[in-house]
Amino acid sequence: MSDYEFDVDTAVHAAGEGRYRAQIHERWNVGAVANGGYVMSIGMRALGQALATADPLTVTAHFLRPTLPGALAIETEVVKRGRRFATGVARLLQGGREVVRLLGTYGDLEQHSGHSRVTARPPVVPHDAGIISRPDAPAVAERYEHRFDAASLSWLRGQRSDLAEVRGAVRFRDRRPPDVLSLAAIADCFPPPAFAWLEPTWLPTLELTLHVRGRPRGDWLSSVFRTRFLFGGLLEEDGEIWDETGCLVALSRQLAVAPP
Amino acid sequence: MSDYEFDVDTAVHAAGEGRYRAQIHERWNVGAVANGGYVMSIGMRALGQALATADPLTVTAHFLRPTLPGALAIETEVVKRGRRFATGVARLLQGGREVVRLLGTYGDLEQHSGHSRVTARPPVVPHDAGIISRPDAPAVAERYEHRFDAASLSWLRGQRSDLAEVRGAVRFRDRRPPDVLSLAAIADCFPPPAFAWLEPTWLPTLELTLHVRGRPRGDWLSSVFRTRFLFGGLLEEDGEIWDETGCLVALSRQLAVAPP
Repeated sequence: MSDYEFDVDTAVHAAGEGRYRAQIHERWNVGAVANGGYVMSIGMRALGQALATADPLTVTAHFLRPTLPGALAIETEVVKRGRRFATGVARLLQGGREVVRLLGTYGDLEQHSGHSRVTARPPVVPHDAGIISRPDAPAVAERYEHRFDAASLSWLRGQRSDLAEVRGAVRFRDRRPPDVLSLAAIADCFPPPAFAWLEPTWLPTLELTLHVRGRPRGDWLSSVFRTRFLFGGLLEEDGEIWDETGCLVALSRQLAVAPP
Repeated sequence: MSDYEFDVDTAVHAAGEGRYRAQIHERWNVGAVANGGYVMSIGMRALGQALATADPLTVTAHFLRPTLPGALAIETEVVKRGRRFATGVARLLQGGREVVRLLGTYGDLEQHSGHSRVTARPPVVPHDAGIISRPDAPAVAERYEHRFDAASLSWLRGQRSDLAEVRGAVRFRDRRPPDVLSLAAIADCFPPPAFAWLEPTWLPTLELTLHVRGRPRGDWLSSVFRTRFLFGGLLEEDGEIWDETGCLVALSRQLAVAPP
């Protein structure tokens, strides 16, 4: 077991019959509540062990209740173990109440091959962008170093913007190399792009789906998060995460609740 | 119960204790297998009844095995019933084996309000685009009328294209008004945009997530489906579905398996 913060704080311990124990650490809080992506990474770690399969390919988390610092129980279920893919469920519980439900299909990202075609490019983060901390989530900001494209954070300067898009690069502050498990945390560690339109506030995530497309190489992950549709009390947030070699490693999409 | 094909073929019958029975009709086949979006609509109907909540807001389906014409058993589980949202699971089984697992959160799309901002526009489908049938999926093609932007179907003319994007409008052939349940079927009824890059073939869906953002009005739904990342044996397909009043009614994303 490594000493990196993320590994210590996402550790899971087998507790028999597809069950695991974990501990939610407050240093991944946004306000009083644990960051959803961090919690999802814990569930993904347990589910990967239950499925005995290397890589999460597509994982969906439904956030039922706020996850708080403290003990977390995880119950997994193997739905199907196939030749190439394995599908399973993880139920995350605190005090006997389910806080997050995960459904995921795992496989081996290194095994696949065949056709290859990509028509998108990683976001450009200015080379001179300084390393700054997220101003809206102090605890989470301590876990990561962000370099932002300042043009995409105009709300920090009190300006509104038509484009709700945040571009930046991120690495773990303790230089933990990113892996497939950490991509859920990464997908939820940027300031919401909707802050271009809304007063910064907590936007509770109903659901987050992560497609993991590659094992990341390098420390920095270039990312772009975009909201295009804010109405009916809901908004989506679409993310792309690219590694240092210019490969897309994850697509994310979450549905969040907008303030009334 | 209406006489429309979609309603007859997605009907579910209560079978006690959160269980339902349904019948997969072969007229929604792609080849020998039932169209995944159609099957998902059946699961969503059962889950909505189990949750007694009006609208699916976000539903994820993992496709475990091909669904074939014939009997379908559905087992639902209420994960959480909240004040505003309800979350549940549906297991779809044939011959005692699970074929699809659904996880969804439901709510009331008419109840929400608050901020509203949209920075995207519906795809433009040429007014003179004729009504044509999908050439690659004859049974499904009989269920819908499609008007395509011919420029987005260059593979039909034997041409390859850099852009893997299909734009068109669709309505049920029998003029059934689209509703929130039918949006899963609609999200899976267009030819795959990746046919711009690959020989037309079956691209099995691993997972499809649908965000329903509005109750559709009018008959025609304007839609765009796009693939940007084909590699590692996988590809994503991102969809937008808009109604006749110019409102976005759904976002979809699926992860599919590319041929070797």
